[in-house]
Amino acid sequence: MNKIITTILLASSFLASAAEPEFSTEQLKQVTQVRTTALNSSLSYELLESLTTEVGPRLPGTDNDKKAVAWAKAKFNQLGFDKVWLEEATFPEWRRYSESGKILTPSEQPLHLTALGNSISTPKEGITATVVLFETLDELIAAPANSLKGKIAYINYRMNRHIDGNGYGPAVKARGTGAIEASKKGAVAYMMRSVSTGHHRFAHTGGSYYKEGVKKIPNVTIANPDADQIARLVALNKNVSVNINVQTENLGEGTGYNVIGQFNGTENPEQYVLIGGHLDSWDLGTGALDDGAGVALTMAAAKHISDVKRPKRSIRVVLFAAEELGLWGAKAYFAKHKNDLHNIVAAAESDFGADVVYGFESNVDAASLPVVRAIAKELVPLNVEYIGKNQANGGPDLIPLKKATSAPIFELAQDGTDYFDYHHTADDTLDKVTPAKLRQNTAAYAVFALMAADAKTTIKPKTQNK
Amino acid sequence: MNKIITTILLASSFLASAAEPEFSTEQLKQVTQVRTTALNSSLSYELLESLTTEVGPRLPGTDNDKKAVAWAKAKFNQLGFDKVWLEEATFPEWRRYSESGKILTPSEQPLHLTALGNSISTPKEGITATVVLFETLDELIAAPANSLKGKIAYINYRMNRHIDGNGYGPAVKARGTGAIEASKKGAVAYMMRSVSTGHHRFAHTGGSYYKEGVKKIPNVTIANPDADQIARLVALNKNVSVNINVQTENLGEGTGYNVIGQFNGTENPEQYVLIGGHLDSWDLGTGALDDGAGVALTMAAAKHISDVKRPKRSIRVVLFAAEELGLWGAKAYFAKHKNDLHNIVAAAESDFGADVVYGFESNVDAASLPVVRAIAKELVPLNVEYIGKNQANGGPDLIPLKKATSAPIFELAQDGTDYFDYHHTADDTLDKVTPAKLRQNTAAYAVFALMAADAKTTIKPKTQNK
Repeated sequence: MNKIITTILLASSFLASAAEPEFSTEQLKQVTQVRTTALNSSLSYELLESLTTEVGPRLPGTDNDKKAVAWAKAKFNQLGFDKVWLEEATFPEWRRYSESGKILTPSEQPLHLTALGNSISTPKEGITATVVLFETLDELIAAPANSLKGKIAYINYRMNRHIDGNGYGPAVKARGTGAIEASKKGAVAYMMRSVSTGHHRFAHTGGSYYKEGVKKIPNVTIANPDADQIARLVALNKNVSVNINVQTENLGEGTGYNVIGQFNGTENPEQYVLIGGHLDSWDLGTGALDDGAGVALTMAAAKHISDVKRPKRSIRVVLFAAEELGLWGAKAYFAKHKNDLHNIVAAAESDFGADVVYGFESNVDAASLPVVRAIAKELVPLNVEYIGKNQANGGPDLIPLKKATSAPIFELAQDGTDYFDYHHTADDTLDKVTPAKLRQNTAAYAVFALMAADAKTTIKPKTQNK
Repeated sequence: MNKIITTILLASSFLASAAEPEFSTEQLKQVTQVRTTALNSSLSYELLESLTTEVGPRLPGTDNDKKAVAWAKAKFNQLGFDKVWLEEATFPEWRRYSESGKILTPSEQPLHLTALGNSISTPKEGITATVVLFETLDELIAAPANSLKGKIAYINYRMNRHIDGNGYGPAVKARGTGAIEASKKGAVAYMMRSVSTGHHRFAHTGGSYYKEGVKKIPNVTIANPDADQIARLVALNKNVSVNINVQTENLGEGTGYNVIGQFNGTENPEQYVLIGGHLDSWDLGTGALDDGAGVALTMAAAKHISDVKRPKRSIRVVLFAAEELGLWGAKAYFAKHKNDLHNIVAAAESDFGADVVYGFESNVDAASLPVVRAIAKELVPLNVEYIGKNQANGGPDLIPLKKATSAPIFELAQDGTDYFDYHHTADDTLDKVTPAKLRQNTAAYAVFALMAADAKTTIKPKTQNK
């Protein structure tokens, strides 16, 4: 769309909104009511407490994963959703059985490590070898061929802390493909500083990959204090040898379920606002921040809306399966619904912990911006700023949607300053969630979903592909 | 001593100090010089970094314990101490080999636990049993006889946070003797919430004991988030069964060494100021806070003094052995020196982490108070307040000294608000120490030790026992 047309559309939508407002006084009263209820309700915290306590960790394919599916289905029904159903998703099933590590020389001491998802096992007695330190993945890639024969390649890169988590991208590169690059140079194992802003002795797990034709080697991260220790020992010109021992298993294709609950719209029920999170988690913690919070707060937000009204369009809460292993639930969902993605009038995933929402952003057609601004106005009482660049990225489970089609994607940007202290660690537990912050998130999602579903104008994506 | 005599002594010492000050202008210049040097020197941090990096954990009797003794002896010599020597101490040697835990029902999930020092092993496959929750040790003691047959007794008591660590005493009761009380009621194992103010998933180890005639049972603590989880499950009326597995060994009598360095006094070298910490640590962390900091800062404080002058009396740095297993080095030291304890003109141990010193307190004869006040005045620039109750308790390694005789004990009270977040965990690592705070501690010890060793008046204990 060129600039002139955009300007005309913007101007005409301003005129339209001046004449006929997107929301009636009655509708705005309902928004206030929903926001107030959500801000004062413990429902989202209760759901989160129940999920993380009664089910606990939810690694795809485990008994707990199945329990989580049963839990979500039962909760949707208890909360009175009009329609509750499951959709199958398959994924490469993987288990962690045990793991331990030691620095052996110059002085024996524990090494806090964890296997990355998909890592193969070491032999039963582990792998003992000398560590070769690189500051970055690029430095490892630049190492001479065969220079790591019999060694453990170690990447010492430290993630930076930012409110929007922008330190994650540069750090996570080494997690995805580091083991491939290390193996190419002859390394017997790959080890990296955790993708972490934390100061505590937790190793952070996460997804990792192998490459056809490159020998698979065990693939672990170490905690930040342990990484500091190894860096200090290397700096002292010490020969640092370690033993790493991880026992894991790849179990082939597993099956799980996206769990979906919907409140039906009164006028255009086939059109829907999609909100949600992912139901699975890593196995180390109880997945309170990642992503029990997203699950609980979007379920609760929809419920709070339904207690006030059924909007014109449906509100659908999708709890995706097997996100951590590679967005498998999301891929299945958007593939299955590929012919009616145009029914999605707004999509937002909560998958960035449980700190406050500080910003609101859209990615929509210009004609839809008056609705966006009307929503933004109702988020101000929650201390949410309108970002206004209309370039929202959305959560990870919306990546397959963006790949399949343009779609009206929204972002309720959370403060992620501390998120990567806990992300993918054993320390991701319920006590890290502040109830008042979770309520603020719930209220923000409730306001957003209600208004997007009940607006006069149907929100449209930037580029239509009907 | 009655009140009137005290008053006369106080009055006379005031008069004396008015006439002849405890410290000359030249001496006070030296104090300023030592304080400034210590505040600007990285020596204590360098010593701490070296000990925790190159040696690491220092469980009594291990190879690392021996390395620590060699390290301390070598450092004392490098720093130019006039006299460096070892004194033997024996202790009950104990090892931790492995440990793991799981909640099994209602839903399987990891349980972060650690064996308490001295705990026996579980069978190889661990112990699986139902948890019976008590809020306090007293509640467990009040349980009916045999009521815990086949069960795991669990105490849920949570330690309170205070600047002076006064929550520790009430909480630690359950650590010392809980397993004895649980066993008396028929329990197959004893488990307790860690003695901890922390929010992270670390179990805190520590000393524990068995009793002749009461069956020994395995003895573990769990991390605070895990304790919360178990408490929630019990509150839901769930049958909570767990598997706990600890493999440990009691190795009989072990031998270690107090490592001692002294700068000799110029006038009364047989009299000495005793400062120090304990050289051993638990095996989980690298003992940076407990008690690498105390070791490093007292060594550095003595060195900074020696760079300016040799005071009238000697300054002796004692690095005690096997404190964690029951003050064995301290018992040996004060037994060996029992006939010349009157030579100690002031004693202070640093064993409470590495946060700032906020208070200064004595426990001395009234005639010595002018010296105390003169020292207190020179600590003010370091933001150290004079507590002035003259009731100092001193560090743990001074307990045998207090039992053996009255002695002029001092306390440089540290801010312990966060200390029990890290105490006895894997997370007690170098990154928890703030260099500027460690420098402040070093300066405070340097000022105190210099002035106590160089005062005109010899500091005397409250009750002489010559």
